[in-house]
Amino acid sequence: MVTQENQWQVLFQSPSSAARLGALKTNHGVIKTPAFIPVGTKATIKSLTPEDLEVLRVQIFFANTYHLWLSPGDKAIKKLGGLHEFSHWHGPIITDSGGFQVFSLGRQSFRLRQNNNGAGKLLKINNQGAHFRSHIDGKKLFLTPEKSIEIQFNLGSDIILPLDDCSPYPLSRRQAELSLARTHLWSQRSLQRYQELKKMASQPPLIFGIIQGSYYQKLRQQSARFISRLPFAGLAIGGVSVGEPKEKMRQAVGWIMPLLPADKPRHLLGVGEIDDIFDFVRMGIDTFDCVLPTRLARMGKLMVKKKPWFIDITKSKFARDKKPIAPSCQCYACQNYTRAYLHHLFRERELLGYRLATYHNLYFYMELMRKIRQAIANNQLNELARQYGVSG
Amino acid sequence: MVTQENQWQVLFQSPSSAARLGALKTNHGVIKTPAFIPVGTKATIKSLTPEDLEVLRVQIFFANTYHLWLSPGDKAIKKLGGLHEFSHWHGPIITDSGGFQVFSLGRQSFRLRQNNNGAGKLLKINNQGAHFRSHIDGKKLFLTPEKSIEIQFNLGSDIILPLDDCSPYPLSRRQAELSLARTHLWSQRSLQRYQELKKMASQPPLIFGIIQGSYYQKLRQQSARFISRLPFAGLAIGGVSVGEPKEKMRQAVGWIMPLLPADKPRHLLGVGEIDDIFDFVRMGIDTFDCVLPTRLARMGKLMVKKKPWFIDITKSKFARDKKPIAPSCQCYACQNYTRAYLHHLFRERELLGYRLATYHNLYFYMELMRKIRQAIANNQLNELARQYGVSG
Repeated sequence: MVTQENQWQVLFQSPSSAARLGALKTNHGVIKTPAFIPVGTKATIKSLTPEDLEVLRVQIFFANTYHLWLSPGDKAIKKLGGLHEFSHWHGPIITDSGGFQVFSLGRQSFRLRQNNNGAGKLLKINNQGAHFRSHIDGKKLFLTPEKSIEIQFNLGSDIILPLDDCSPYPLSRRQAELSLARTHLWSQRSLQRYQELKKMASQPPLIFGIIQGSYYQKLRQQSARFISRLPFAGLAIGGVSVGEPKEKMRQAVGWIMPLLPADKPRHLLGVGEIDDIFDFVRMGIDTFDCVLPTRLARMGKLMVKKKPWFIDITKSKFARDKKPIAPSCQCYACQNYTRAYLHHLFRERELLGYRLATYHNLYFYMELMRKIRQAIANNQLNELARQYGVSG
Repeated sequence: MVTQENQWQVLFQSPSSAARLGALKTNHGVIKTPAFIPVGTKATIKSLTPEDLEVLRVQIFFANTYHLWLSPGDKAIKKLGGLHEFSHWHGPIITDSGGFQVFSLGRQSFRLRQNNNGAGKLLKINNQGAHFRSHIDGKKLFLTPEKSIEIQFNLGSDIILPLDDCSPYPLSRRQAELSLARTHLWSQRSLQRYQELKKMASQPPLIFGIIQGSYYQKLRQQSARFISRLPFAGLAIGGVSVGEPKEKMRQAVGWIMPLLPADKPRHLLGVGEIDDIFDFVRMGIDTFDCVLPTRLARMGKLMVKKKPWFIDITKSKFARDKKPIAPSCQCYACQNYTRAYLHHLFRERELLGYRLATYHNLYFYMELMRKIRQAIANNQLNELARQYGVSG
């Protein structure tokens, strides 16, 4: 049997930064890195078909265990042949543990106290797991590290993640220590359950560990060492996602990168603005997932090279604009439609608008990653960054 | 110069019913009839691209002048190169006069009195035209027969329709007479303006007349004779659309079909249930437009051969159903997805659900029309009707 570590190969290490080219082998294909992983929460990237994703050269997408567990249910999906058969996407899929949504929806509804049916109101976390109520019907549910692994095996994911304690930012030192201890405990229990289920599976997924530790250097480094030593196939970095101060994100990741073994792929959870991608690729990150390009698309924010890297197509200045979204873009939307038509579709909330926008934004990201891989090979990553207005 | 009548050819007259095969030449291509015309109100068939429509073998779509006039405006569309350039659809487009929406939105808001800004509240019709308020911003607008023709020329439509008096059903005999007189007056004024604009246009559209007359035999027949004698390129039948009693619809159309000249194509406005299509094709109708397949799609009502010709995919009985929407359907949605996945997408209001459903429903209609044309040629239309549960 091939060990999980052999699924990963570093193909080229940049001489001028920590950036590297790699290849990660999964049950449903090889992912060339650095790679961007778009989010298809409910087993669909909103408005697009798997054939669209293939044309866009999307390599893998990110589905959310929490949502699929609640509806249609992991057992239903297993009976329907697993996520790939269900969604008609036959490339790799990565799923999260479900924890992030349990924690964030729980906190939201605790703060807002809006739900009459008690949905989401209850969030009690102890070392055993997280008790909470479904945001759909208020049903009481209990998510444990073991349960999350079982759900992800049922889904038939290619890369799975262990339950971690997703505490809010900022966090006191004491709280951060307790949270990290729990994450580490849960990591070990997740691995244990993973090893048990792996023996029974014909095509077991890869499992990545998650490094936490809030914004405390010592805790981050402790976590990096602890998680790296466990037999995970890859390492994910959690707790530094979009919305937090950029400098703090870079600092927190910077503390741990030198401690990570080269022979495991490194995923940065929930991060993916254009400057983030350049900066973290240069720090040695291999893969990113983020809702940004697809979510911005549905708001009419269409990617262009110039900072802030989008135009807001809903603005009336585009009502008569005959230019394509992005002048040099070769995507289907840019080759065939004007900004004026996109503006019209968004103004009228027409479904085709969301589809063309999503298509364009993902094309932009996939093209960016292709250029980044090429630039790493040619040692021109800083030049490329400057073309996108990111300091070289 | 080719006269408008020469744009239409009857290719085959069925020996066993009034059904016929025809070809209608427009500026953007030839339409094989009988044909179904899906509705793309705002210059887009909701969720689909023009390339999708080509694969579906959609021949022509129906855009609504009222909506496009109000936003983005006919002059804006003209500046952007016309509807075809704007929407990237390069096949034929038919537009209505705008009257139907002016009349029905006006009546609705008069009844409901819901709008604070006065939008739509004002609807005053006299022989000059219709005064009303925009349903968007409450702006006072005035639609006349001449104005409607001018707007449709600006849009760059292939087939245009004259403003008619769209009175509600039922209507007293006296009201029906007044309404019909106005429709006939407006038809003549529309033709006059059409002839003037045609002289200045490099590629003038075809114009079809509209036969009205409510549910009074004498008025319907009077209208059929009057409109048929005017130099229209085709004849549309108005005032018998979905929602009215089927028997009355068939009766009203039956009164006039024998009076219509064979050498003009016949369009039935706003009608398109499966049994309607069979029945009216056998009565000699050549083209239909209807929102039904696309609107049903967005409600999760997916077409199948068995009456009522759809399944409601939102029902929980489909949650684990591994079958395709329609067992024998060769469309992309049926070839690649289960009812269970469609159910999931609709339950979660995922954009891909509306897209796949619209695709399937239009495929179903296009396939139906292809089979109808074939069956007319083979004199097997009644056999085909029975396959769809429609009496032969």
